[in-house]
Amino acid sequence: MNEKIEALREKLKSLNMQGMIITNPVNIRYLTNINAEGVLLLTRRENVYITDGRYMETVRKTLTIDDEIIVYDFRELSKEDYENFFIFCENVGFEEANLTYAKYKEYMHKYKINNFEETEGLLEKMRIVKKEDEIECIKQACAITDKCFEHLKDFIKVGMTEKEIAFEIEKFFLANGADGLAFDTIVASGINSSMPHAIPTDKKIENGDPITIDMGCRYNGYCSDMTRTVFVGHVPHYMRPVYDLVLKNQLRVLEELKEGNNIKLISKSVDSDFKLNGANMIHSLGHGVGLDIHEYPFMNSKSDFILKENMVITDEPGIYITGRYGVRIEDTVLVNKYESKSLTMSDKEYVVVGV
Amino acid sequence: MNEKIEALREKLKSLNMQGMIITNPVNIRYLTNINAEGVLLLTRRENVYITDGRYMETVRKTLTIDDEIIVYDFRELSKEDYENFFIFCENVGFEEANLTYAKYKEYMHKYKINNFEETEGLLEKMRIVKKEDEIECIKQACAITDKCFEHLKDFIKVGMTEKEIAFEIEKFFLANGADGLAFDTIVASGINSSMPHAIPTDKKIENGDPITIDMGCRYNGYCSDMTRTVFVGHVPHYMRPVYDLVLKNQLRVLEELKEGNNIKLISKSVDSDFKLNGANMIHSLGHGVGLDIHEYPFMNSKSDFILKENMVITDEPGIYITGRYGVRIEDTVLVNKYESKSLTMSDKEYVVVGV
Repeated sequence: MNEKIEALREKLKSLNMQGMIITNPVNIRYLTNINAEGVLLLTRRENVYITDGRYMETVRKTLTIDDEIIVYDFRELSKEDYENFFIFCENVGFEEANLTYAKYKEYMHKYKINNFEETEGLLEKMRIVKKEDEIECIKQACAITDKCFEHLKDFIKVGMTEKEIAFEIEKFFLANGADGLAFDTIVASGINSSMPHAIPTDKKIENGDPITIDMGCRYNGYCSDMTRTVFVGHVPHYMRPVYDLVLKNQLRVLEELKEGNNIKLISKSVDSDFKLNGANMIHSLGHGVGLDIHEYPFMNSKSDFILKENMVITDEPGIYITGRYGVRIEDTVLVNKYESKSLTMSDKEYVVVGV
Repeated sequence: MNEKIEALREKLKSLNMQGMIITNPVNIRYLTNINAEGVLLLTRRENVYITDGRYMETVRKTLTIDDEIIVYDFRELSKEDYENFFIFCENVGFEEANLTYAKYKEYMHKYKINNFEETEGLLEKMRIVKKEDEIECIKQACAITDKCFEHLKDFIKVGMTEKEIAFEIEKFFLANGADGLAFDTIVASGINSSMPHAIPTDKKIENGDPITIDMGCRYNGYCSDMTRTVFVGHVPHYMRPVYDLVLKNQLRVLEELKEGNNIKLISKSVDSDFKLNGANMIHSLGHGVGLDIHEYPFMNSKSDFILKENMVITDEPGIYITGRYGVRIEDTVLVNKYESKSLTMSDKEYVVVGV
């Protein structure tokens, strides 16, 4: 049987669950490679994927015999079929953070489930430590992202709009082997950079602007995530201390992202250093990256969590001065036993563009 | 106060609900124009939007005083603040089709809600009949889509890959004023066209291929949706009867999409005509289009629903011969009192490309 499903079955057994309904499409992709709309059932006897007519052919092409997954078009299934899937199951797990309240009620009734049990991120937790082939995909996504940044250094010119730059990034990703964007690209210039989540506008790039570019692509579903604040023409003197403070902390965090360290303590150290310098961290310091752009673990000063080898996490401190400017520097980082390894490798010293 | 929120408050009153928690980001955008991550509360006294630091500035820029919405960063709110929002409310509504089971439990506890009541698509139903400014946005998105199709007629050449064509569509949309894609573009050539939801591949376009192109863009958040099956070089004789049958039904449905008609009956008539000719409808005949690419109403032979003026719905019959080819023809259609109006207007007679 499919290795990941086998591991999941072991965990279910230890939780005294005899079955599970998996509805989160990302978890289904993780377990099966299926990239479609449907529901995965682990019953006592078998693994079942229920989809609709539109996806039957794609799904059949994705699965191999080794997966041991039976595929149904939901139109083929009767009321009795649904009721039989979990007939001898005492407890059936579900994904409470994905299943809506409406579907929760519908499924309990449709599958005649006695005890429908929360699984508390069981699959999301399995996904935290990446397998070799997953790390390979993230590396590829990061390499395309670095290549894109190199391209942008020459591409960005005074007079272009933020939207034009964002569009160029998307084009570059697609033309260089990515599946697409990992998230909506941020290109925030001048005072727009003071908004950590700005949407690209028609504002034209001006000499003296900082530009915060937060971008990432997907390779085989896996994400990259990188941010750089670059400078147009020259580095304004008033921004240097802020940039240096962000970079100092970003590098210090990078050093700490290794097995055995607690991300709560790492976050607190940044909070303290920022406060000492009159600044504040207004978003979290980082997050896991994988098939989701934001996944476990979430790095902030409340998150008591010990790092392990082969986790992939972002390191992204930022400072935002409302109505003026902002700086964020972010890498996607692989946690190793004795050191961290940044998978995005673009320049982090002052990068001046548009000259 | 904001007109749409006022209308929603009236509906809540009639349902004996004194408050509501709105979590569906599309519904929040519909009511407020806010395009961010957060939760909208309608309490007895006020309208409250709770977001996080990253979005504060964008949200404040979007809202006007007339909206009468108070914005909080969730970090500013204490346990007591949360408990006070719905303090004198007997019943508080929530969006059971959007709120996850985990959040349902969390919110009930955090807001100390006595009766947390399902609202059964209250907002989604408000969105079915479009307002003038919404129709204007959909028209713009459709116009960009038509323009793109005109461009593709010249652009597509033998030897190109499906992915290249999909990429060109995305580029064209962005360069012509769209916010982005309304959904992942389908470009399915040759036997790939037999899969209604094919993902673009590296397959090269060959002479004699049919190509099914299903594409749509967003304008100010509002979607367009159009499909055409075009032919490379010539129209294979064996495909003509299938194409003609799909087109005949598409045109007949188009005529029926007017106020007072029942979409169940419209769907059944296509089912019958297909069956008479040895074919099957394996997906639904259409769906509402607006801020979501798929929204109410869903047009199939089980959906008992009467059309009204200013609804926008797709008309998309299709026939798929497994392992051989497929044909789908789809328009985005505005329902009027006495007639329908197709908002996408590209050619539907045999379109031959690549010559």
